[in-house]
Amino acid sequence: RHLVPLDLDAIDCVENAFRALASGEVEMPPILSMEVHENNGEVDVKTAHITGAKSFTVKMSPGFYDNPKIGLPTTNGLKVEALLLDNGYLTETRTAAAGAVAARYLARDDAQRLCVVGAGAQARLQTEAIHRVRPLSRVDVWARDADKAERAAADIAATLDVDACAAPHLERAVRASDITVTTTPAKEPLIMSDWMAPGQLVIAMGSDQDGKCEIDPALVARADHYIPDRQSQTRVLGELRPAIAQGLISDTAEFKELGDVVAGHLTGYDAATSLTVCDLTGTGVQDTAIATLARERAQAAGLGQTFTS
Amino acid sequence: RHLVPLDLDAIDCVENAFRALASGEVEMPPILSMEVHENNGEVDVKTAHITGAKSFTVKMSPGFYDNPKIGLPTTNGLKVEALLLDNGYLTETRTAAAGAVAARYLARDDAQRLCVVGAGAQARLQTEAIHRVRPLSRVDVWARDADKAERAAADIAATLDVDACAAPHLERAVRASDITVTTTPAKEPLIMSDWMAPGQLVIAMGSDQDGKCEIDPALVARADHYIPDRQSQTRVLGELRPAIAQGLISDTAEFKELGDVVAGHLTGYDAATSLTVCDLTGTGVQDTAIATLARERAQAAGLGQTFTS
Repeated sequence: RHLVPLDLDAIDCVENAFRALASGEVEMPPILSMEVHENNGEVDVKTAHITGAKSFTVKMSPGFYDNPKIGLPTTNGLKVEALLLDNGYLTETRTAAAGAVAARYLARDDAQRLCVVGAGAQARLQTEAIHRVRPLSRVDVWARDADKAERAAADIAATLDVDACAAPHLERAVRASDITVTTTPAKEPLIMSDWMAPGQLVIAMGSDQDGKCEIDPALVARADHYIPDRQSQTRVLGELRPAIAQGLISDTAEFKELGDVVAGHLTGYDAATSLTVCDLTGTGVQDTAIATLARERAQAAGLGQTFTS
Repeated sequence: RHLVPLDLDAIDCVENAFRALASGEVEMPPILSMEVHENNGEVDVKTAHITGAKSFTVKMSPGFYDNPKIGLPTTNGLKVEALLLDNGYLTETRTAAAGAVAARYLARDDAQRLCVVGAGAQARLQTEAIHRVRPLSRVDVWARDADKAERAAADIAATLDVDACAAPHLERAVRASDITVTTTPAKEPLIMSDWMAPGQLVIAMGSDQDGKCEIDPALVARADHYIPDRQSQTRVLGELRPAIAQGLISDTAEFKELGDVVAGHLTGYDAATSLTVCDLTGTGVQDTAIATLARERAQAAGLGQTFTS
């Protein structure tokens, strides 16, 4: 507080922020606002990046509107339990784990042949995660860069002790697969509809941004089951977006989500006779879940540094 | 990494997250996504709160799409410079500072009489900040609770050495003011249009949420100048919302923002003859600016704890 008193410097600092905003040199997305119903509260996240600045701030601010009744300011109510500087590790883990959840609930029980599209970190991790729920006998890795596919296949073979090969022909590898998982940043479809048949599962996890697309929109429309992780996201960021844009799926269509499947709300599903597409864009609830697990384990193990405010 | 390997526990953890999502017991707002144009990147913020959980996570993840060209993963590119556990102090400061910026650019040069509506922290801080740019001779504090108004007036008088009184009649205090600043969580208008005349400035900073409203929508419509901090926000959270809802202002109307005023884009403004309403909902660029100032000063002073990942 003594470093930033409410003086002319602070006023000028905020004035300069407004000047930058008017210059068009500020990227300022809409406020993220999350309600916390059980406590009549909300948490708002605000941020902005000024062009050329070396840093920016993400601010979390709480509003708990029953606080005055107990003599506290409305803006009390959040305490930072932990700061996890995981360099993306937990995101990679929860992303791969979602692929395994999809395979666990949507793949045939006897699925053992996986086609992996892409040769990056998620190609390896999705394979590892899926292998834990559907032990694999054969993995085909396809990537635009055949050398990278070779390296990924070698890594997978060494790590998981399965038969893993770089696939020269994507179509053949997809046709031969029980499960295909796509892990690329592609902006044009890689997996075509007429390659696929009932009994096969496609897990598309690469498209997490407007403009990305890994799957033929016709396949999304044709699948017996299209299962988004969160439909409100896949409509904007995932494989549902181009299918709607091309008029193949109504923009009012409603789909069971992966959570509904896990919760048993998709009745009569038969993996052996279904052509299924699962569309993973990544959800905040996965982040909350995996970060909570990490924090609890770190606390139980007495790891981490302690900091005080 | 050894605490959270990609094993069945991690998969089950994510499975449970999806199950909770389907139960309706998860609040998961849309992803906050901010582009960082100059680096062909973006920063996504995701969060979710599970009903009954003691904690939740806010995750920041970067995507810098030119990284592979320099041999880095796309998800590299963010480093936590500092974690500021400020308990809302910087928000209070940048909020009050914005009121001072509004007064600096929009109030008459000879403005010296302030009416403060509300008796909380911002009532005191807005007065202090405005006093720095328009030295005040008289402050009238009005609040629903007259005792609180008395206490706030006493605090202001003691802190700023100005003549400060609790005002028994809001209308009279507003009519006598050069500047009125509203700092309440009101959901119904407190300041009526026919109380106001040219030469007066109203700074409304209390409405920062859908459903709040401090100003008669007719006043917003009638003002010679309506200046939002960010129109895209005031349309949803601020005083513009009810004015549009009541058909008093077109939902396509465009207004100069406070940043435009600071940048000199509002030409010919005459405070002496203008009835002006400035609507402050609070912006991310203020947060980035004030937090950067705090971090730079703390680093220069060698304050804070060091942590490592």
